[in-house]
Amino acid sequence: MDDKEISKAVVRRMPRYYRYLEELKSRGVERISSSELSDMMHVTASQIRQDLNNFGGFGQQGYGYNVDFLYDEIGKILGISSIHTMILVGVGNLGHAITNYIKFSAKIFKIIGLFDVNPALIGQTVSGEKIQHYDEIPKFLETHNVDIAILTIPKDDAQKVCDDIVKCGVKAFWNFTHIDLNVPKDVVVENVHLFDSLMLLSYHREEVLRESGNGS
Amino acid sequence: MDDKEISKAVVRRMPRYYRYLEELKSRGVERISSSELSDMMHVTASQIRQDLNNFGGFGQQGYGYNVDFLYDEIGKILGISSIHTMILVGVGNLGHAITNYIKFSAKIFKIIGLFDVNPALIGQTVSGEKIQHYDEIPKFLETHNVDIAILTIPKDDAQKVCDDIVKCGVKAFWNFTHIDLNVPKDVVVENVHLFDSLMLLSYHREEVLRESGNGS
Repeated sequence: MDDKEISKAVVRRMPRYYRYLEELKSRGVERISSSELSDMMHVTASQIRQDLNNFGGFGQQGYGYNVDFLYDEIGKILGISSIHTMILVGVGNLGHAITNYIKFSAKIFKIIGLFDVNPALIGQTVSGEKIQHYDEIPKFLETHNVDIAILTIPKDDAQKVCDDIVKCGVKAFWNFTHIDLNVPKDVVVENVHLFDSLMLLSYHREEVLRESGNGS
Repeated sequence: MDDKEISKAVVRRMPRYYRYLEELKSRGVERISSSELSDMMHVTASQIRQDLNNFGGFGQQGYGYNVDFLYDEIGKILGISSIHTMILVGVGNLGHAITNYIKFSAKIFKIIGLFDVNPALIGQTVSGEKIQHYDEIPKFLETHNVDIAILTIPKDDAQKVCDDIVKCGVKAFWNFTHIDLNVPKDVVVENVHLFDSLMLLSYHREEVLRESGNGS
């Protein structure tokens, strides 16, 4: 790794490798060749070799990849070999679902605080975690190490909430709101823009219908 | 449009334009120059002009873009000028949230059927929509026009459910499951892989910490 620039496209593909390796691990597969992995992932074997070479290789000629080892190494690269603590702001439907989803399925991502402004929600519990008032965040962040803030709030509040939390020192945001956040250079944002995704689906569906001659 | 190939990257940026134009519309802005749009979107003005030229332009020298017109045109390109009907399979936490989210925020995407295999859920109502048994899907699809199927089910069931629904003629899937689906060429899938997104966030956070010298 060091100072070598790794292209965004390669980085974007890493979680997918991780997912497939997890699946292989769970099936008890110990090693896999790049061509087998290629068949599974519908990516060329040469692409796989190139991608993994970016991070120093890991494969051995004639043996293939050791699944456990590769899984662990990619995990390290992705920074998910240690626990990440998170808070979630906005415990509406989506926030509720994300909380349960994370609690249920993620071992290394841990939600340690839930916050909302709605008085009706304060004190209620989601997945064993009590909802606190939004105003408690600065105090909470003084006494807890929080790696990531999840924003599942209405778009009109999003930038202000983000600014407030940046001021408290949080460096990473998982943004489900409908807007793009402006953050300082040393803060990262990963967006889950659900409607963007739905619009792309709509676009690609039209495209396929057009090609097959059934389009509008 | 016609037969011209539009690059994936351009298409991927379209929903974002649509979002910003929606915002401008709601603020009553009638026209905007590419440089103003550029400031808002943190994209170069020349990129904006190039992107929009792919679809035939829409701008006028010295006037800029008519917000309403551009919004409508991009809407047409994205295929979201008409209603899209959807079913959702798997009414757990995430399915529940997605249903409410869509019902609440989307005018042109309409969920018209909810399905699950869990007997405890059948007959219950989410956002006014009754949950039906999974086995009812083929009959439902015979009598209803469904554009998109949303999958919010465990990964182990995902491919089979997808195959079943493809057989009934649905051509588009919004996939929230943890796997990549194999589909025929004339079927499109848009993935929302939440954990991939979280892993990327983790990666970029590590990167920023490393650069600022606080990294592990």
